[in-house]
This record gives sequence, C-alpha cells and structure tokens, in this order.
Amino acid sequence: MITFENDYSCGAHPRVLQRLSETNLIPQPGYGFDCFSAAAREKILAACGCPGGAVYFLTGGTQTNAVVLASLLKPWEGVVAAQTGHIHVHEAGAPEALGAKILALPEHQGKIDPAELRALTGTLLADENVEHMVYPGAVYVSHPTEWGTLYTGEELEAISAVCREYGMRLYLDGARLAYGLAAETDVDLPLIASLCDAFYIGGTKCGALCGEAVVFPRRTPEHFINFIKKHGALMAKGRLCGVQFDALFTDGLYFEIGRRGVETAARLKTILARHGVPCFMDTPTNQQFAILERERYEALREKIPMGFWSNPDPAHTVVRFATAWYTTDEYLEELDRLL
Amino acid sequence: MITFENDYSCGAHPRVLQRLSETNLIPQPGYGFDCFSAAAREKILAACGCPGGAVYFLTGGTQTNAVVLASLLKPWEGVVAAQTGHIHVHEAGAPEALGAKILALPEHQGKIDPAELRALTGTLLADENVEHMVYPGAVYVSHPTEWGTLYTGEELEAISAVCREYGMRLYLDGARLAYGLAAETDVDLPLIASLCDAFYIGGTKCGALCGEAVVFPRRTPEHFINFIKKHGALMAKGRLCGVQFDALFTDGLYFEIGRRGVETAARLKTILARHGVPCFMDTPTNQQFAILERERYEALREKIPMGFWSNPDPAHTVVRFATAWYTTDEYLEELDRLL
Amino acid sequence: MITFENDYSCGAHPRVLQRLSETNLIPQPGYGFDCFSAAAREKILAACGCPGGAVYFLTGGTQTNAVVLASLLKPWEGVVAAQTGHIHVHEAGAPEALGAKILALPEHQGKIDPAELRALTGTLLADENVEHMVYPGAVYVSHPTEWGTLYTGEELEAISAVCREYGMRLYLDGARLAYGLAAETDVDLPLIASLCDAFYIGGTKCGALCGEAVVFPRRTPEHFINFIKKHGALMAKGRLCGVQFDALFTDGLYFEIGRRGVETAARLKTILARHGVPCFMDTPTNQQFAILERERYEALREKIPMGFWSNPDPAHTVVRFATAWYTTDEYLEELDRLL
Amino acid sequence: MITFENDYSCGAHPRVLQRLSETNLIPQPGYGFDCFSAAAREKILAACGCPGGAVYFLTGGTQTNAVVLASLLKPWEGVVAAQTGHIHVHEAGAPEALGAKILALPEHQGKIDPAELRALTGTLLADENVEHMVYPGAVYVSHPTEWGTLYTGEELEAISAVCREYGMRLYLDGARLAYGLAAETDVDLPLIASLCDAFYIGGTKCGALCGEAVVFPRRTPEHFINFIKKHGALMAKGRLCGVQFDALFTDGLYFEIGRRGVETAARLKTILARHGVPCFMDTPTNQQFAILERERYEALREKIPMGFWSNPDPAHTVVRFATAWYTTDEYLEELDRLL
Repeated sequence: MITFENDYSCGAHPRVLQRLSETNLIPQPGYGFDCFSAAAREKILAACGCPGGAVYFLTGGTQTNAVVLASLLKPWEGVVAAQTGHIHVHEAGAPEALGAKILALPEHQGKIDPAELRALTGTLLADENVEHMVYPGAVYVSHPTEWGTLYTGEELEAISAVCREYGMRLYLDGARLAYGLAAETDVDLPLIASLCDAFYIGGTKCGALCGEAVVFPRRTPEHFINFIKKHGALMAKGRLCGVQFDALFTDGLYFEIGRRGVETAARLKTILARHGVPCFMDTPTNQQFAILERERYEALREKIPMGFWSNPDPAHTVVRFATAWYTTDEYLEELDRLL
Repeated sequence: MITFENDYSCGAHPRVLQRLSETNLIPQPGYGFDCFSAAAREKILAACGCPGGAVYFLTGGTQTNAVVLASLLKPWEGVVAAQTGHIHVHEAGAPEALGAKILALPEHQGKIDPAELRALTGTLLADENVEHMVYPGAVYVSHPTEWGTLYTGEELEAISAVCREYGMRLYLDGARLAYGLAAETDVDLPLIASLCDAFYIGGTKCGALCGEAVVFPRRTPEHFINFIKKHGALMAKGRLCGVQFDALFTDGLYFEIGRRGVETAARLKTILARHGVPCFMDTPTNQQFAILERERYEALREKIPMGFWSNPDPAHTVVRFATAWYTTDEYLEELDRLL
Repeated sequence: MITFENDYSCGAHPRVLQRLSETNLIPQPGYGFDCFSAAAREKILAACGCPGGAVYFLTGGTQTNAVVLASLLKPWEGVVAAQTGHIHVHEAGAPEALGAKILALPEHQGKIDPAELRALTGTLLADENVEHMVYPGAVYVSHPTEWGTLYTGEELEAISAVCREYGMRLYLDGARLAYGLAAETDVDLPLIASLCDAFYIGGTKCGALCGEAVVFPRRTPEHFINFIKKHGALMAKGRLCGVQFDALFTDGLYFEIGRRGVETAARLKTILARHGVPCFMDTPTNQQFAILERERYEALREKIPMGFWSNPDPAHTVVRFATAWYTTDEYLEELDRLL
Repeated sequence: MITFENDYSCGAHPRVLQRLSETNLIPQPGYGFDCFSAAAREKILAACGCPGGAVYFLTGGTQTNAVVLASLLKPWEGVVAAQTGHIHVHEAGAPEALGAKILALPEHQGKIDPAELRALTGTLLADENVEHMVYPGAVYVSHPTEWGTLYTGEELEAISAVCREYGMRLYLDGARLAYGLAAETDVDLPLIASLCDAFYIGGTKCGALCGEAVVFPRRTPEHFINFIKKHGALMAKGRLCGVQFDALFTDGLYFEIGRRGVETAARLKTILARHGVPCFMDTPTNQQFAILERERYEALREKIPMGFWSNPDPAHTVVRFATAWYTTDEYLEELDRLL
C-alpha cells in the first residue's frame, strides 16, 4: 500500500519510536517536567541559537496556533494572515473561538507581501475610528506555506521589520518546517529565531506521532503553562513529546527527515513531468500540486490516495502529492507505473 | 528508581507500545478515519453494550471535559459538579473558557449526593429570576472521584434519574476508569453507558501514552468533529489514539491494567498500616491518601516521589500514593523498606 | 452650532422625549415586562405584518449584532458578510468575541451579490475538508449599507433564496432603517419580515436616545432573554426602550423621521453640486459621501463637523455628510454659506 | 398605583429628565466625547477625591461587571466573590462568558470576610498545583450588598490590604451606591476611591433612566474604549449617560436620592414592625427583607408588587421591599393601610 495523501499517514520515524521504547519504563514527573523534555528543550534552543529562550510542547498545529496567538495578543488585537493562511481557512474558527479576529491580506503563492502588510497596518493605525476596529497585534506566516512555498530570508526580514515598526509580534507556523529547512533556502532556525517572537517546529508532519515544539526565542508570555492548561493543551505525560523531540534533535534526525521529504518530492516532480502532468505551482518542499484531467484523476484516485485541492475548471482537478520521511522508492516506482 | 507520585509517570503499557510498532508503517487516512480507530471504536462500543453509539478520541482529560461539556450544554446552561470536581478545581478554568459556569454542590468523599442534586436543580428551576441565572444543563461526576472513591450503581442510577427528571445530561469523567472497573463494584461499562449521555474511558492514566475515548452511547452532538477541531483537539494522526485503544480493548488489557493498579494499591495499604501510617480516607481504587507526620513526610519525600495533597494541621501532611500498571513488586518492597 | 458628522449628534426626537416625560412616574415591572414595551412590540409587529413574531429591545447596534448573531449560529458556523460590513470592520471584533467568524464577500457599493454568495456557500459546503472549516450559518446584510445604499426587493429576495437553499439564516442590520424605508425603494417592513430570520429596527440613529428593536418574524431563539442577560445587554429599565419605540411607532413618527433625513440629504446633495463638490457615490438615503480637495476639507472641517471617511489620493479626502431628524433648514443654509 | 418591587420601577428623577430636555438639541460628538460626559466625569472625580482618575459610562450593571472584570483580569486569573454575589448568582454566567471563573467565598449577610479571603488566597497561591488552578486576580464586593448590608470602612480596608498583599485588584459593585452612601456609615466616595482599583457608581437604580459610571481612581486598563466596544457596551449617544450623571452630580442630587431611599426604608421598617411583620435581616439601606406568613404574602402580592426572595419554610416567604427616590408618602400610607 502506498500513499501521497499527506505527510501524516504513517506512525513515527523508527528512531523516534525506538527512543519511546527505550525510555518507556523510566518514571518521570508529569506536565513537561521530565528529563526528556528538558533535554529536548536544550537541543532545540541550541539548534535555534537562542539558549535563553523557552520551549513548550503541544500536541497539534491548530491547538498550537490558537493557544500561542491568544497568548501573544492583547484583548483589543487581532492577527494579520494571508487569505490562504491555515488559521484563516482550515482551523474551524479556532483562533476566533479564543477571541482573535483574523485580518486577511492577499496571498502570493501562499505568502504575504511586506509592503501590503505595511500598508494595511499603517492605514488601520491611522484610522480615526481605530478604537472601533481590531488592532493588528501579530502577524502569522506559515513556512512552508499551505502551498509548499518558502519565504526568502530577505522577505522574512522585511516582514519582521514591519512588525517591529508597528509593535506587532511575528509568529511563524512551522508545521512542515523540516521540509522547509531542507529545501534550497537561506532561512535556517537561527534566522527564524532572530526574527520571530514565537514559532513552532512541527513534529506531527515531520516524523513524530504527535507534537509541536513552540519556541519563544526571547520573551515567554506570563504563566504560559497555566494558559496551556486553560485551553486543554497540557499533557499529563509531557514526556511523550519530550522523548520524541529529543530523538528528532539528536544526530540531526529532524533535518534528515526533511531532506528525505524534499528529495522524494523532487523525484516525484520529475515523474509527473515525464508523464506530461503539469504542476499548478513550482514548490521547493514536500508538497507538489499537479493538474490532472478529470478522467485521469478519477482513475488514479482509485489506486493512490492523493489530496484533493480544487477544481479550477470543469475539465481539471488540482491534487496535492505529499511526500514524507516514509516515502520509499517503492512509492515512487508504483506512482510511475500507475501514471 | 520508583515512584508513587501519580499514575502517569511511565510511558505506555508494553502491549500498547508493541502495537504502535507493529502498525507504524501502514499508511492510513488522518483525523480518526484510520482502520485502527475504527477497530477500537467497535471494541469499545461492544464492551459498553451500545453498538449504536459513537466514540471519539481526544488527547487529554481537561481537553475532553471542556470540549464534551461545551458540546452538551446550550448557551444558557452550566454544569453541576462537586466542590472537589476536577473541572472545578484543577482545570485552570477550562470549562469557563468555553463559557460553561460550574454550579458547585457539596462533596461527600468526592461524590455528589442525588438528593442535594435534586434540591439544587429544583430550586434553581423554580426561581422566579431563573432567566437571570445559569440553568443546570448537565451533571459532571468523576468515577473514580478525585479521592479515589466510587459511586455505587444505585447512586449513579439515582443521579441519572434526577437528570432525566430535569432534562439534564449526565457526563462521567473516567480518567481512571480502569481502576474503577477493577475494584469491588457493581458499576460496569454497560451500566455507565445506559445511565450517561456521555462519558470518557481514560487512556493517559490507564496504560496509554495519551488519549481518552469519549463515548456517546445514544446521541452524538451535531458536527462533533468540527467542534473538536474548533477547540484544537483534533489530531492529524488520529491513529495514535486508535492504535492504543485498539490494544487496550484487545484481550482485556484495559481491565488487566485496572486490576494491577487496584491490587498493588491494596498491598500498599497493608504496608502503610503495618508501619502505622493511617489513611485519610478508605478508597477502593489505585489512589491511597495517607496522613504522615510532617517530619516523616519531609524525610520520605527525599526518597520516593509522592503526591502532596494538603496540610490538615501544622503537624501533618496528607499525601497521595498512586499505583498503576507499572507498579512492580520492587516498588512496593522499596516502599516497605523505606518506611 | 450645526453638524453633519453623523446621525446621532442630538438627543431624542421631541415626541420621544415627551413620551418619556409623560410616562416617567408610572411604576412598571423591569426587564421589558412593562406595558410600554408590550405596546411597542405590538405596534412594531403590526407594522411588519408578522403579528406572531417576537420583539426584543437592546441598547446599541454592535451589541445587537453580536447577541443576535451568536443566538442564530451553531457553534460550528460563522456569518457571511461584505468586506465593508459594519460587523467586519467597525465593531472591534465583537462577533469574534462571541466566537463567530466572519466569512467575507466582495462588496459592491456596500452590498453583497447573491451569485457570489451562492458560489461561496456552495464551494464551502462541497469542500472535502469542510469539517476543518467554518460553516456558513448566517448571512449579514446592512440596509441601508455602510455606504448609504439600498438593496432592491429583488436583490433581497435572491439573497434570501440562497439562504433557504443552503439552510442559512438571513439577518438584516437596520441601524438606519428609517432612512432606508423613506427613500425610493420597493423594500418595506413586511417584505423584510417575510425574507429575514431576524433583523433590527434602529432607534439610536433614527430618533431615540438609545435602543434597537430586534424582530424575529417567525422563530425566536430559545431562552433569548437569558441569552441577552448573559451578554450584558438586558436593561433593568426595559421601559426606556419600550416607551421610545412606542412613541416612534405611534402616528408614523419613525417614517416621518426617515423622510426628514432623506429630504434634507437630497437638498444637501443639490447644495454640494451647486458648489462643484462631486459625490463619491450616488446614495439615496441620509448619508452623502463627497470628495473634497484637501485644502477645502481642511478649511471646512474647522467650521462644520463632518465624518472623515478616507484619503483616496494625496490631494483629496472623502467625507461623509449625515443628515437626521434634527437637520433643520438652518443647517443647510449654513452649509451653503460656508462652501 | 404603588410598588415596592424594586428600585427601578419608574423612569428618571425629574431633574435628570429635565436636563435631558434642556440639552436635547445641542449637537455633540458621539461615543462619550461630548461636553456633558466631560462635565460629569469632572464632577464625579471631584466627588471621589481622585482628579487624576478616569470615568467611563456603561448602560447596565451586569454589563459593567463583566466588562470591567474582564479588563482587570489576566487570562489565568479569576475573581473572588461571595456565594451570594450578584456576579455569581444573578448575571446568567456573564463573567464566565468572558472567561472569568468566580472563586466563591462564604457570605456573611452578603459580605465576605477579610480573614477568609486571606485564607483562600494564601492557600491557592501556596498550592503546588497552582498552575492547574485559577489564580485569584481580583476581588468583587457589592456595596450595598445584595442583602442591602454595608461594609464598614475598617472591613473595606482589611479587604483592600489583603488585595495589595497578594497583588489582587479590588472591584466594588455600587449598583445601589447612592443608598449606601446615605446610610449610617463611615464609607464615602473618597474612601472607596482610595481602596479600590475600580468601582462603579450606579445610575439605573439611583435615579437615571440607565447608566453606570465606572471609576478607575488610579490606573485605567489599556485601550479601554476598544474593550468596551468589543463587548457591545459602547453607546453611540454617549451623551445619554453623560447628561444624566452630570445632573446626578449637580447640587448633590445623587446624595439626595440616596437619602430619600434610606429615609423611606426606615419608615417602611417601622410600618412593618407596627404590623408585626419581622425582618429577615436588619439592613441600613433601601432594601428591607420581611418574613411573611404564606397566606398573608399571597393576599398582599395581589395588591402591592414586592420582590419574591425565598421560601425558608413551607409556612413563610421572604420578600424584599425596595424603596427609591420615587417612593412617596402615599406609597407608605397605602402599604400601612393594606397590611
């Protein structure tokens, strides 16, 4: 059985699972006060080049986005995001459920434009009716974006500069960060840590059974554990995430996982091209969006799980092929055979 | 290293972990639509004697309580609970964060009294100012309670009868249900399913790495998946809970775990008695509350992790000793030696 | 002193104030159970042609929108509105504070387009990921819109048809409804009542000291008084709104107020044209949007309060001139003189 | 027609109404930026002896309590209040709807005890599990209480001292403050302003059509107008409250109203005593709680509106007689005649 439906179709990377087995019967305190979480935190902060920062582990992306944004925003503030931002489209209103309005910006291949961000923010703050409006308090970027694209270092710096200029916090959703770091890019963890007020390093889609590592490189929101608890996100067995991230940040596993996803995606792109399947967008990470004629799509979906994306016209369907650490040569050969 | 601090100090029961390994590389759809979750659901509903019910997996108890209660309550309703109820005391205001006020009742060894429940509800609903008050919409019971005590079948039936009389939903928090089912009791899963509108079968404290199985024996709230997602509780790798509960409900493992916890707790009680340590309360499950002289407590805590509970007077401390599936003979012998 | 800044610059229409004086010392029950509220309700329902409906009085527009929308929506639903909708732009995130995400549609002179509404709704509901999205549960229209424009009867019928087709509720914000009903239009109260699930008849901007009359022509949300109370919107002296709306719906006062606003706005438009001031948009109600050269604007604002709207280019400013029941001939003559 | 049902049965004190008439056609900016609100603010701050403080006008008590408390609390905090506190019992869960859990203390004739407050707070903050609990962030007192009783200056000072000791804010609900200030008491506005972080001077129950004046004697929460707006409590015609409070704080009207209520209550108490009706509690303000035999109650309620309070036993009913600025001699004579 093979799949390209998403990057969370299998369990955990074998080395993660092995570490869970090895540590299984070592008793530890709960709620993240275990030695594995402590070790993982230290390794992550070292990788980010911000040893004075703080790391918290939550279980999933939507939860993480909502809880962190709620902690970053004042009651009169909202968060700026791209029209296509995950928090705006695919989180069932979770940010709004914690009171955070999303101020939508146009998207450019999933990214926001620093100049448009400056224009929106400047206009809002200069509005004579601003007391009747939602203040822009934070900016949300996803990296890779929902389209698999990446910001350049220059773009992130420009966005960060607008944030500092207007007193907004910058938050980066790194659900698929492993694949973003492994692509051709000048954006690495230390750069992200130097530019963002908070970000998360995704585990669920990058080799863990579950778990996202939230990093506050400089300032942690007050009473953040209480905050996590209040929103139902504090795990009794905090060790579950701690052990996994400890494994992911040992011997470069997180980066190895990213490279595997990116390499298999590049090979997948070649296979698609060879079979005359055009890409909807050129993306450097582990998600590839292909345009299939409707009939071909209908036939193919019977044999290979893919992600439905949209129907741009009655004759075509855009589908997402996602690769991951578990995408073997066999997966690619089977796809090649079936196309 | 030994511990009696709580029942979530180690990882997963070995058979649970083994099942995670075996299934690790079998690709499956996300969000609970995997074959393992389906199998687990079927087994759970069979064990509960309600094949027409529905099961959802969430990651932790506080999250589960908040999400399920929010789904059970109308906007003008609150939930009745004991003063000592976990939702009232130890969930950092999570129910209130979803808008649910808690209407507190006196506690009797952690339990609510059906007559007091009827009195509160009847008085509230008869109040001429009820439109200015919070309606009692649901009743929360924990079983075992926070004190490790259990309701009798008769008590649960009486509470359920009051709920039906006044149109309230009955919700049971089974964070430690395995230990409750393994004790001397006439309360089993089919009885709980027949009396409650919703309840959860705890995994985190009963052998899983994480996960709670919410059961709606008869009526599921509309769009419950969307509801879970909105509150950040939907796991991309739903299989993580599915596989674990499949293992827990295969070959009676969940009940075996419960028995181990209860048996070791009984032996622990004997050891305490032999050393002249009185119990604060007689409890039939895996939590034992002992009264230690302050000095003895201070000395002992250096050697064995226990749970601090309260200081009833300046000379004594109440501590909780929790056993679990991982409490070996060695743990008990070491305690015996140290007392 | 004159003003065109808005339509809530003075107190109440003299006949409203007189009625408050006449009834002042007649004791009545609180919370809307007074005889004046009862009389007002009856008159409003008669004017709307829905004698079986229900009417509730709240104090202000933002409060009314938030409370009514929250009562109309299920927890997994949001509300569709124009990009320029008051709830989306100028209510400081009040709908989101009650958990309601706004699904924004393009605006056409402040209005939404029925075809675009159908497209958005149809696409959302057909999306395979809809459980991860916010369902469209209600549609918000303002009439007059924030730009002073009006829907035609045909447009409202088309929007209502889409709502029925997809099970959405239609809600109309009538903050300035008096002026909308007095313009050239085929939309009257009975038509609105027949097409909408809820709407409000604005008082604050149409002659009252405060107060908005929410009408549910057919089905009232359960426990709506409790709902109002929970959101801090239930007035102890419900009579305050009751007496005022009783006066507004006696001898056609509400319509007379609307006509005064529309007539003075028409004369204002003539004055602007005579002085070579172009209108930004042709609007049939009591708000006129004029384009002033920057210098002229700076000079004029010293003498006459107007509403700042936007700076479309560095040389021009768009301002709003609002008329109301208190706009006398003297106001217009003074403006004529000053231009 | 007479009534003792409550203190909001009639409209406004004639001098308040007169001031509304006099100012009716003077145009002013909206949202509290009018000259009347400015004048009222200045007079209130002078009366409170805190000229550097800030005043905001909201429309009703429940709204005021919820909005102010939400602004005073951090996300991880709740508010301590008496079991009988209005926010805990009669506000339909409004504080919880804004996320604020209420930590209930025992009540002593409606009041909290400083020693019990210290014990609760000290215990909570010393609890090893405090990160899983709701922190005590503010203390709510009502003065007069829901039972018409008053704190002494010494009691308020002791409560304030506990608040300072533990970093909690002190908030006083003065819905009926006029009557509290007019009774035999050493608590005046300057004392309240010196001890509280926020309090409100009630208008609705003390002579206004609506309106409560929130006073922050020292520090105003950031962006409080935006906060008010977000919770639907910002009035377009802010002048409505401004004019009324300007009148109430001109020539001592607010205090005159209070004295009238207290004096008539004292005479009412005498009348009850003369007719052998015992009081449930001895209260110094405008609310008197009497114990009536059931039959007498049933007969009397046909003729005079009173407030039902409770049925302490099958043979008796406790009723509330409330006086107010509009309680004339005729009211008292009629009651005397009917008893």
